[in-house]
Amino acid sequence: MSIYLDNAATTPLDPQVLEAMLPFFNAQFGNPSSTHSVGREAKAAVEMARKKLAQLLNCKTNELYFTSGGTESDNFALQGAVRDLEITRIITSPIEHHAVLHTVEELEKKGVEIVYLKVNENGIIDIEDLKNHLDSSDKKTLVSIMHANNEVGNIIPLEKIAALCEKNWALFHSDTVQSIGHYQLDYSLSGLNFAAASAHKFHGPKGVGLLYMSERIAPFIFGGAQERSFRAGTENVAGIVGMAKALELAYQNLKQDQEYISDLKQHLISLLKKQIPKISFNGCSDKSDAALYNVINIRLPEHDKGSMLLFTLDLEKISVSGGSACGSGSLIGSHVLNAMNPEDTNTSLRVSLSKFNTKNEIETFVKVLVESIN
Amino acid sequence: MSIYLDNAATTPLDPQVLEAMLPFFNAQFGNPSSTHSVGREAKAAVEMARKKLAQLLNCKTNELYFTSGGTESDNFALQGAVRDLEITRIITSPIEHHAVLHTVEELEKKGVEIVYLKVNENGIIDIEDLKNHLDSSDKKTLVSIMHANNEVGNIIPLEKIAALCEKNWALFHSDTVQSIGHYQLDYSLSGLNFAAASAHKFHGPKGVGLLYMSERIAPFIFGGAQERSFRAGTENVAGIVGMAKALELAYQNLKQDQEYISDLKQHLISLLKKQIPKISFNGCSDKSDAALYNVINIRLPEHDKGSMLLFTLDLEKISVSGGSACGSGSLIGSHVLNAMNPEDTNTSLRVSLSKFNTKNEIETFVKVLVESIN
Repeated sequence: MSIYLDNAATTPLDPQVLEAMLPFFNAQFGNPSSTHSVGREAKAAVEMARKKLAQLLNCKTNELYFTSGGTESDNFALQGAVRDLEITRIITSPIEHHAVLHTVEELEKKGVEIVYLKVNENGIIDIEDLKNHLDSSDKKTLVSIMHANNEVGNIIPLEKIAALCEKNWALFHSDTVQSIGHYQLDYSLSGLNFAAASAHKFHGPKGVGLLYMSERIAPFIFGGAQERSFRAGTENVAGIVGMAKALELAYQNLKQDQEYISDLKQHLISLLKKQIPKISFNGCSDKSDAALYNVINIRLPEHDKGSMLLFTLDLEKISVSGGSACGSGSLIGSHVLNAMNPEDTNTSLRVSLSKFNTKNEIETFVKVLVESIN
Repeated sequence: MSIYLDNAATTPLDPQVLEAMLPFFNAQFGNPSSTHSVGREAKAAVEMARKKLAQLLNCKTNELYFTSGGTESDNFALQGAVRDLEITRIITSPIEHHAVLHTVEELEKKGVEIVYLKVNENGIIDIEDLKNHLDSSDKKTLVSIMHANNEVGNIIPLEKIAALCEKNWALFHSDTVQSIGHYQLDYSLSGLNFAAASAHKFHGPKGVGLLYMSERIAPFIFGGAQERSFRAGTENVAGIVGMAKALELAYQNLKQDQEYISDLKQHLISLLKKQIPKISFNGCSDKSDAALYNVINIRLPEHDKGSMLLFTLDLEKISVSGGSACGSGSLIGSHVLNAMNPEDTNTSLRVSLSKFNTKNEIETFVKVLVESIN
């Protein structure tokens, strides 16, 4: 039996999501831009999905744009804000996803000032530092901070930061890829201007995501009149329908899934503490109110298995991550852990859970882990 | 029974393609960037798909990049060539897809000179005009001309244009969205530097495409290290696998499908000429060697049904297009037909066929069309 504990990298598709998608691979295969009934059926499916998502995320339908995923959404927002909204400074953090970091590095080449906020050893972003930077310059500023960190699970105080940005006339973009579907999000939150999301992190399909935007920026991808001329390209109809269904399911069972997964995580932490006394946890991942309830980032005591550890776990058919799966794999150090504790050389493992995991799987994982490092 | 004759807008997914995709929605749901076996399985599927596509398109695997579709691929090539390859002039035609036209309009705002080649009343691009423009300037130039036109089906002499570009040190990008899967393409053709394609035009899924590039340009979407760091974002694994399967099937049965569809088209043309004596055809679409064998653009004699015609056909469950489905629908005039014959006010219909159409369907369509305009 294989044990999949890497749900922050990607999640298995919910069978009900696939069921919702299938008609759009079969009978309802039309192009939403076609004006005949086959096209209109597809168009209706896309717009119904948008309506459902807007309701679930508490925003207007005309504030949601479908993209190919979270990375495109981040690029769309950041590149567009600089191009169209006169943004000349971006304040972000060194523990953002590469979709944000590598995009702002590109924007820096074009003359945009990039400010990286201070982050402490637990990955907590220094809000005073943000305040000072917002106060210190008249440059038109965009703040880009992810809602929940993909490696250590730390959650930012979204409302507080949104309010701070609003007060200081700064725009605010948040990558919500890791929190959407796991928490009830309110995209109409005052001060939040852009938010990015990806379906495959909450049991939806890969290759589809969305961008929330309350500010108008020109297209990132030019061409046809899709998405009210803001994002060209024939719509991934099945993917869009799947994303809406996945979020609907996630929010239908939110409380129950939250409790179930939180219990699994607490069980995992207890077992680890008991069986590996010198264990610790990176970021806030072991603090239940400060981090995602489905992510724990384990810092192992020194051991002599080195990079063989992930290999051993893999041989036992246990999938965990050595960092973010969106990076180049486990062999290159995590930029997130490095920003928090540059000198640390201990092995870290990210375990990320879903509603499909079981206590049995957690117990097997701990057993195999303990055997592997001893 | 509904009759779908709009295969240039999008095609029904081949059931064998869906079958190939399904495992990647189920057991093999991993993130290709994950280093564990679940991730490696997904990565292997992506790389196998790339290998298969490279073989079918006669290019190297490291020249193919997966994208969210043809429109993104066109943007990637055109924006990238201007940004990274010192292109200061783009030569294109007024009958290109909006994915090219609206992108070059944006690039024009950034100072790139845009040249639109002359096109005659049959939509034939003036090669002498291209020669003269290539001769007349020392600006570093990219030529962007689509292989086959999506509205009238006209096919350009790809080898001739590629050779001309090469001889004049110009780069050449071709949107091959309408020809891939219908003709054996050779992306390694000398002088061809970029080519865009989309899976859903040859019975593959929507939301996935590819860009062939022999020249190195930096990413269009920045972030993770996917696609050898040239296109960030978690791969649409099922879509990529589906695209490769769709092209494999298309080329396996190419000759047979070509003959079958060509026969259908000839049958349609004969019937139309017989039953609507004053009918004519736009572009080269009735000339078998000069246009796609699956597209016919019908120019109806004057009639008094106006814009009700498409509506009537739709009521009879017949899907055809009043222009390109990628535009804003039939109510806005086609920019392609307009470039060819600006004064023409007759109604035009695009009929585009696939291997799933039958002679019976063609006959029913002609019968209903004749009744509708009389």
